[in-house]
Amino acid sequence: MKYYIGIDLGGTNIAAGVVTEEKYLMAKHSVPTLAWRSFEDIVADMASLTLTAIENAGLEQKDISCVGIGVPSSIHPVTGNVVFANNLNWVDKPLISEFQKHISLPVFLGNDADCAALGEAFAGSARDYDNVLMLTLGTGVGGGLIMNKKLFSGGTKLGFEPGHICLVYNGLPCTCGQRGCFEVYASCTGLIRQTIEAIAQYPTTEMKKLCDNNFDKVSARTAFDAARLGDMAALQVVDTYTSYVAAGAASLINVLRPDVLIIGGGLSNEGDYLLKPLNKKIKAFIYASDIVAPPNAIRATLGNDAGIIGATLLGEE
Amino acid sequence: MKYYIGIDLGGTNIAAGVVTEEKYLMAKHSVPTLAWRSFEDIVADMASLTLTAIENAGLEQKDISCVGIGVPSSIHPVTGNVVFANNLNWVDKPLISEFQKHISLPVFLGNDADCAALGEAFAGSARDYDNVLMLTLGTGVGGGLIMNKKLFSGGTKLGFEPGHICLVYNGLPCTCGQRGCFEVYASCTGLIRQTIEAIAQYPTTEMKKLCDNNFDKVSARTAFDAARLGDMAALQVVDTYTSYVAAGAASLINVLRPDVLIIGGGLSNEGDYLLKPLNKKIKAFIYASDIVAPPNAIRATLGNDAGIIGATLLGEE
Repeated sequence: MKYYIGIDLGGTNIAAGVVTEEKYLMAKHSVPTLAWRSFEDIVADMASLTLTAIENAGLEQKDISCVGIGVPSSIHPVTGNVVFANNLNWVDKPLISEFQKHISLPVFLGNDADCAALGEAFAGSARDYDNVLMLTLGTGVGGGLIMNKKLFSGGTKLGFEPGHICLVYNGLPCTCGQRGCFEVYASCTGLIRQTIEAIAQYPTTEMKKLCDNNFDKVSARTAFDAARLGDMAALQVVDTYTSYVAAGAASLINVLRPDVLIIGGGLSNEGDYLLKPLNKKIKAFIYASDIVAPPNAIRATLGNDAGIIGATLLGEE
Repeated sequence: MKYYIGIDLGGTNIAAGVVTEEKYLMAKHSVPTLAWRSFEDIVADMASLTLTAIENAGLEQKDISCVGIGVPSSIHPVTGNVVFANNLNWVDKPLISEFQKHISLPVFLGNDADCAALGEAFAGSARDYDNVLMLTLGTGVGGGLIMNKKLFSGGTKLGFEPGHICLVYNGLPCTCGQRGCFEVYASCTGLIRQTIEAIAQYPTTEMKKLCDNNFDKVSARTAFDAARLGDMAALQVVDTYTSYVAAGAASLINVLRPDVLIIGGGLSNEGDYLLKPLNKKIKAFIYASDIVAPPNAIRATLGNDAGIIGATLLGEE
C-alpha cells in the first residue's frame, strides 16, 4: 500500500493528512496558520504537522511516497515558487526547498482550488465523471478543471482563474484590479453586498430581522434563510444571485464542456435551494443545450478534505 | 509521401485542396455552394470537387489517406452527424455516409473554426506554439483551441464556443437566444452596429462620408479607415471595440492560458491598427499579467487556406 501526505495551506489553518492510494483520508490534523509569522516558521509548522500525521497513522517517513501541498496562489511555471499568496503575505517563496530542509520527501505544489477539484473528481461527488469543472463560491470564486481525469492547467500553467472572466463589462471593481469579474457578483462577498443593498431598499424584509438590523451580521446565508420564509425581497436577491452564478458557469461550460459542474464552498450547504434554480438557469443559458444535456451542477461532498486528498494527486500530473 | 483532402464547406463556397503530410496545400479549387439546393446535391458537388482536386494534383484516389471536412456546425458527439448548419439549412445530416456514397475514403468531420485553428497552429502563424487560441472576428466570433498541439474539444465534445461567453450581463440580444454574448460586441456585425450608432450621434464624422451617408454601406472597415484619418468619433469606436475584444479575449486567456492568440477573419487585415491596442488592453485586462508575459495577439496568415489545411488534420485527433 502506498501512502501520501496532503497539506491544505490556508490563511487561517494548515491541515494535513495521510491519504492511501485508494484516496482514503486516514487521519487529518490541523494547526492555526498564524499568518503574521515568518515564511520559515510557517513551513516549519507544516513539517511538524506532517510528522505528527505520519506518526498518528502508525507509519514512518519511509512509508510515504510524496507530499502534496495546496497553496492559495499560482505556482510559477518556471521556478516552481509560490507566486503570491496574499493571505500569507508570501511573494515568490521557494516552498519546496524550504519544506525539504525539514523532511526529505518529494514535494509537489498546486493551487488550492485545483487540489479541491482533484479531490472531488477522484474521491468525491465527481468520482464517476472524466471531465469536471469545480467552482468554489467563497470570499472569491475559485475553481479547478479536470479533463480526461487530469488536471487542466492551460498552456502556460499560470493558473485557471474562472473567477476572473468578465461577466459585467465595465461593472463593479474587483480585487484583481479589473471590473466586472464573475467573482464580484457570484462570490459570497458579492451575495452579501447584494443582500445589504436589498435590505437598504426594502426596510420591511425578513433579511433585516435575521441580521438584527446590523449589516455586519449579514452573511451569505441571510438571503437564502429569508427566502425560505417566503420573503419577497430575499427571493429576488436569491434569484438575481443564482442568475449571476449561472451566467458565469454557462460561459465556462460553453468553452470547456465539462460532464459535470461541482459547486463547492460554504454556500453549497444551501443544497437544492441553490442547485435547482442554478441548474434551470444554466440550461437556459448555455449554447446548444437542446443537443446534448447540459452538465448537471451538483454539490461538493468532501468539504475541506477535498484539498488534502487532491493535494496528494499533484504528483501524478 | 502521404496526401490528404481538406474541404472547407461554407454557406457561400465549397473549397477543397490536396494537402501533403508537410501541411503544404498543393492546389485548391472551389465552387459556389448554392446553399438552397438539397443536401444530396451539395454533397455530390463536394465529391466532384474532391475528384477534380485529386486529378489536378496528378494523383489518384488511392494516393489519398483520408478526407477532412470543416463544416459550419457542431458535430454530434455520438452520431457524428452535422448537428445544425443554419447557412446550409442542414439539421442532423449524416454527411460522412452521404459523402462516402461517392468516394470510399475515410472521412473526418470537424467544426470550421476548429479547422482554421488547426491550420494556423500547424501550418500558419502559430506553427511555433503548442497552445493556441484562435478567435475569428467575422459575422460572429468563432474560434478554436489547440492545447499541446491537439485540438481541444472539451469534455462532451459539443463544441468550443468562445463567442458565447457572457461579456455584458443582460446586454444586447444574441442570435443564440442569450443576451450579452462576446460576439454581440466583438464581431464585425457588432462593430458595424457600433459604427452606425456613432455616425448617428456625430453627424460630422468622416465615417458618414466614407459610407456615403448610407448605413447599408457601413462595413467593419469604416471605423478603422476613418480612425486612420484622425476622426475623433471613429477613434472612439475603434477604442471601444478593441476594448470589447480585449475583455473577452482576456476572459478566455484567464482560464485557458494559451501561449499565443491568433486573430482571424477579415478584420485581421487591419494589422497593427487592431493588434497594437488589442495587445495593450489584453495585458491590462488579464489576471496576473505581471508574472508571466501574456500571450501575444498576432494575425492569422493563411486566410481561407487555414480551414482546408486544418481539415486534413482532423483524422489525427
